[in-house]
Amino acid sequence: MKNIHSKRPDLPLFKSEIPKGNHVILAQAITLVESVSPGDIILANQLIETLLPLTGRSVRIGITGVPGVGKSTFIEAFGKHLTSLSKKIAVLAIDPSSTKTKGSILGDKTRMEELSKDAFAFIRPTATRTALGGVADRTRETILLCEAAGFEIIIVETVGVGQSETSVRNLVDFFLLLMLSGAGDELQGIKKGIMEMADAILITKADGDNTKKASQAKADFEYALHLFSESDSGWKPKVITASALEKKGITETWSLIEQYVTFTKANGYFEKHRTQQNLVWFHEHMQQLLQQKLNQDTEINSKINAFEKEITRKKILPSRAAKQIIQDFLKKESSR
Amino acid sequence: MKNIHSKRPDLPLFKSEIPKGNHVILAQAITLVESVSPGDIILANQLIETLLPLTGRSVRIGITGVPGVGKSTFIEAFGKHLTSLSKKIAVLAIDPSSTKTKGSILGDKTRMEELSKDAFAFIRPTATRTALGGVADRTRETILLCEAAGFEIIIVETVGVGQSETSVRNLVDFFLLLMLSGAGDELQGIKKGIMEMADAILITKADGDNTKKASQAKADFEYALHLFSESDSGWKPKVITASALEKKGITETWSLIEQYVTFTKANGYFEKHRTQQNLVWFHEHMQQLLQQKLNQDTEINSKINAFEKEITRKKILPSRAAKQIIQDFLKKESSR
Repeated sequence: MKNIHSKRPDLPLFKSEIPKGNHVILAQAITLVESVSPGDIILANQLIETLLPLTGRSVRIGITGVPGVGKSTFIEAFGKHLTSLSKKIAVLAIDPSSTKTKGSILGDKTRMEELSKDAFAFIRPTATRTALGGVADRTRETILLCEAAGFEIIIVETVGVGQSETSVRNLVDFFLLLMLSGAGDELQGIKKGIMEMADAILITKADGDNTKKASQAKADFEYALHLFSESDSGWKPKVITASALEKKGITETWSLIEQYVTFTKANGYFEKHRTQQNLVWFHEHMQQLLQQKLNQDTEINSKINAFEKEITRKKILPSRAAKQIIQDFLKKESSR
Repeated sequence: MKNIHSKRPDLPLFKSEIPKGNHVILAQAITLVESVSPGDIILANQLIETLLPLTGRSVRIGITGVPGVGKSTFIEAFGKHLTSLSKKIAVLAIDPSSTKTKGSILGDKTRMEELSKDAFAFIRPTATRTALGGVADRTRETILLCEAAGFEIIIVETVGVGQSETSVRNLVDFFLLLMLSGAGDELQGIKKGIMEMADAILITKADGDNTKKASQAKADFEYALHLFSESDSGWKPKVITASALEKKGITETWSLIEQYVTFTKANGYFEKHRTQQNLVWFHEHMQQLLQQKLNQDTEINSKINAFEKEITRKKILPSRAAKQIIQDFLKKESSR
């Protein structure tokens, strides 16, 4: 694999400039982290490990919702509120379909026009196309880099197609689900399980003719959340109505998140949860690496495909097929 | 590992007697399937593969709910109804804490006194203590054996502690959640996500003073289910009230399941879902085998423990630790 950079990344410069909050160098370091070149991965790991003592001091917020729910509009208003409180914020936008083109970066910055000009804000789309383990690993490392660069609030935004939400839930402290007030529930297309992961539901566009509908939706969601058993954090999910137009619900959202942080730091969940997330990362990454080794072996891969056909035609027991593959795989590894 | 049987299993006898519906031989074959001896696993695989053409023709029903919800009472009444329609039914009770003692089997049979005496019914607790991959794999194979023995309806019962439900969901066609009408929602302890997996919710003990509460609970659950997006099957989950005491909701449950089967066979989901389940089984089993290889290696295991400590103390990047472990593991495998 060839190195994607035109010149070698300057690691000492990265190590000295990132803690100073240098946006340009931070952006370069994120590009290094996103690289799939084996040499770059080693450099990226070295860089992040040097910076590890500087990480962990932000509040990590995941924000999701279907397209059209008003995520960018909300994040723009929410972000501006935070920067007005002199908070340094980073927005990492995850779009599983995006590639690392200038066009997509530009598109994203345009979506949050005000925020992108704000010296206290850093906006970065995360490319997920080629990353091992999908969304999660590269974004995890990007969060650490942003923290080392002094960002106090990290917002991880997903496009809400239903695949990346679970991964994002494992990256953040607080998970915020945006829902529309006007639309019928069926139209919202929220994948089963996502509502249950939310620490808060924010009903957007609660203004004008929608105000009444939004209040009703709030009551409905409160009832539905109440049906679920208590979460591990001991936190009871809240529902708030918001309007970017009328600037409603923005300060409430931040004060709710502050309450959550205070609450979970007091009961020990905040730190415990982060440690758990890191251990899950460790174990998932081991599985991903083994999976990658299996996939990279074209001979094993074609055997897997052949077995899948036989399984579909009920010609072989899936457990026996699996055993055969793993035996062949470990035998091949041992003959290297 | 020593063979757990006093004498070698008689495979030709198994192969000829199981299709005839011989309960005694079926029970012996399940014991073979549950064995962890490598020799037995090979024999069990051979047996099931021979029988594969005879499998797949049952309706597989998962039934779950917290202890005290009345699962055994419901299954007894439901089972008796099915056998009265001349259906052959098998009940596989999964208790993650149970071991394969006579006591547990006896305890289980006593719970369903009437059904256990019924010639059309076969009741079997599934031991899960030692099985690779927990509940799922052995139960999957047991389902296939029961189908080969001519059982038309397979009921897989879980104790509802919240860990085995997801696995069971992957084994069955229809997933039924039992809920209490009287108790506060918080008391039901239904783990987040389980309600969303249900194809139907059955509210138990809907009799006497509880009748009104049960109707209210029915309306509440119907509302909550309506908030979720449509499932892949296209089936809208239903809520029914039942009373084993007053024999209510029993025939309704079966007719609902028949509706589900007709509906999903018509839209192609039934077969598609089973094929998907088998492919998931294949891929999960490969991962489990690799995981088992990792766990069985005491040197790798102690390295994993050491890294977990370092990760907790934020001394090493989880992704780098994972890479180190997998490199060491594959190097060791190759030096065997």
